[in-house]
Amino acid sequence: MSASFHEMWADLRPIGRDGGTGGYHRYAWTGADADCRAWFRAQATARGMTYETDRNGNQWAHLGDPTAGDAVALGSHLDSVPSGGAFDGPLGVVSSFAAIDELRRKGAEFTRPVRVANFSDEEGARFGLACVGSRLAAGALAPDAARALRDADGTTLAAAMERAGQDPEALGPDPERLARIGAFVELHIEQGRALDLTGDRIGVASAIWPHGRWRFDFRGEANHAGTTRLEDRRDPMLAYAATVLAARRAAASAGALATFGKVAVEPNGVNAVPSLVRGWLDSRAADHTTLEALVTAVEQAASESAAQEGTTVDVVRESFSPEVSFGAGLRDTLVELLNGAVPVLPTGAGHDAGILSGTLPSAMLFVRNPTGTSHSPAENAAEDDCTAGVTALADVLEGLACA
Amino acid sequence: MSASFHEMWADLRPIGRDGGTGGYHRYAWTGADADCRAWFRAQATARGMTYETDRNGNQWAHLGDPTAGDAVALGSHLDSVPSGGAFDGPLGVVSSFAAIDELRRKGAEFTRPVRVANFSDEEGARFGLACVGSRLAAGALAPDAARALRDADGTTLAAAMERAGQDPEALGPDPERLARIGAFVELHIEQGRALDLTGDRIGVASAIWPHGRWRFDFRGEANHAGTTRLEDRRDPMLAYAATVLAARRAAASAGALATFGKVAVEPNGVNAVPSLVRGWLDSRAADHTTLEALVTAVEQAASESAAQEGTTVDVVRESFSPEVSFGAGLRDTLVELLNGAVPVLPTGAGHDAGILSGTLPSAMLFVRNPTGTSHSPAENAAEDDCTAGVTALADVLEGLACA
Repeated sequence: MSASFHEMWADLRPIGRDGGTGGYHRYAWTGADADCRAWFRAQATARGMTYETDRNGNQWAHLGDPTAGDAVALGSHLDSVPSGGAFDGPLGVVSSFAAIDELRRKGAEFTRPVRVANFSDEEGARFGLACVGSRLAAGALAPDAARALRDADGTTLAAAMERAGQDPEALGPDPERLARIGAFVELHIEQGRALDLTGDRIGVASAIWPHGRWRFDFRGEANHAGTTRLEDRRDPMLAYAATVLAARRAAASAGALATFGKVAVEPNGVNAVPSLVRGWLDSRAADHTTLEALVTAVEQAASESAAQEGTTVDVVRESFSPEVSFGAGLRDTLVELLNGAVPVLPTGAGHDAGILSGTLPSAMLFVRNPTGTSHSPAENAAEDDCTAGVTALADVLEGLACA
Repeated sequence: MSASFHEMWADLRPIGRDGGTGGYHRYAWTGADADCRAWFRAQATARGMTYETDRNGNQWAHLGDPTAGDAVALGSHLDSVPSGGAFDGPLGVVSSFAAIDELRRKGAEFTRPVRVANFSDEEGARFGLACVGSRLAAGALAPDAARALRDADGTTLAAAMERAGQDPEALGPDPERLARIGAFVELHIEQGRALDLTGDRIGVASAIWPHGRWRFDFRGEANHAGTTRLEDRRDPMLAYAATVLAARRAAASAGALATFGKVAVEPNGVNAVPSLVRGWLDSRAADHTTLEALVTAVEQAASESAAQEGTTVDVVRESFSPEVSFGAGLRDTLVELLNGAVPVLPTGAGHDAGILSGTLPSAMLFVRNPTGTSHSPAENAAEDDCTAGVTALADVLEGLACA
């Protein structure tokens, strides 16, 4: 791979990195995020590309006239989950710049405008909603609702953006900008082991599973753990625990996914029976009917467990993303430009490309992940596979945007 | 009850109170704790009692010569658990002052020195270890170990004391002070429903169950909740959930108590399989053998569940308090002074009186708790029962310390 490719990684590597775990903490509109954004801007400038931040905080680097239509846009995101890996997001952005570098080195002649994007707040790690930047642009998220999102410290998205120098009043749909894009291609590290199992370096996305987040509030009565008889307790931890196990069983029998990965307990004292256990369910399935049946089964199990323990449970759907089928046109073009030698596979993870696919032709390339590990410091991709990703993205870009 | 009794409650009522839940947050060496301590000092001064803070931060109000021996000490604590009730601790301190007021009103003549104590950091809510002030005084906690205790923000007990104006270097055993006390009587709201079930206002403690805290660290592998196949996961939340349920079953069959009331998850992201779920077990039983067998059963269940999920579990005993049997001498004297009309009952909760019982004659009075609710804003005691508590404590004090 080129020197610039390695330099880009070297510059990004220390930003928001926990030296102990090696995990990344790059939440939207924090200092680490600002450093990532400064890096993006420097990459654009270094290549003589026009730099721009849009009304929703998404960053753009333009090759050619920024106002021209029928552009080919590449890109992904730079923010991370808590203690995330190095590749989820950045691989797509770095590969976009590297693909342009490769075509320029070959002396390719661009016949369409080319753009690279860094979408803001893709992971939703801080404010609880994923793909905020692309949702706003596509009109899939109301500006008022976005501004009112709060992080764990109670800071609103509006206040966080303002502190980062981005005007929260400007948030809103951006139809003209999106109308100027004829095709969007997002390269991303695969977040499962499908490519590893088939022995392929690169894949093309067919669809994104429908998925959502549901908050389960189990409420009981706080009490002294050392003096309250078992029969006098209303302990919501027991109902929560039973629901965690029920969710796993239901997902296994549905061939789908259900995860409780986040919990908040009140008062969270060692010697106190909790008054509240709040658990978040992340669930995904290949189709809507399966997902709906699965979540209904988990809710049912939660209600029964809660009643059995003299506690209650309320379930709130915090977010939902319907199934995305990437348009066959652009998807088939990608497969063709890659000589047909790539598997076409679905994923359970949401992406900005999924959000934008409702508005403009969008597609995704996946790079092999040898262990499937994702949202973890242990996430990894082999250098050869990353190189193959850049080559594939360059081939696609050449096919779409060059004479 | 007297006006001063109501005034004492009115002064204490707003300190560290959450206006929303009505729960108290009075952690050791915080601003709320300082306000409670200022209140104690003012009560001592208002009664012409000599005020003193000992080397371990325990507060003392002396009636008579502070250096004289064979004193009768009353008291309890003023700190709270997170979102605790109004009575746990303060009822004992307020009743001690009120009992002295009552005897003085009657013109009783004190023949022994009398002391009221507020023991520091009884709940252990901030630094994780209960009864720090009395343990240090009794030589049951090494000063270095105490100074190194850390709160959730990483602040050491030493730093917190220093900030509160208390010299942490002075911490240590206080045998001469304790040797000057001939009897210690702690009045406390009952933390279960035993008195309610027998229809008694007041009870005398027989024993404190052995109890302890064990930290269970379930470790797996962080991963993407939307893309990692169930069979590829090593999810510690599942092993934690199974252990919560197993602990409850084991406690029920042993006629003992086991509670998971505190949890910490990493990375605690909605869309991330956790890498670590840390749960704290609080367990208590009538005797050591039962407790040991119960905790062993929970550890066994945790190991099996962890192995089944491809995760690991490490268990650390963070604290342990052996069984306390209050000495029969002082206990029987209390029953006698209360005309024999009081039940004698054990409790599962630790107390400063339990710590001190190893060093000097100690006893406890319990005041009825109509719901048994404890460590909760809903904790309550009827005013008539509180009045009966003051009367009983005054009767005991008169019998022990008056001509």
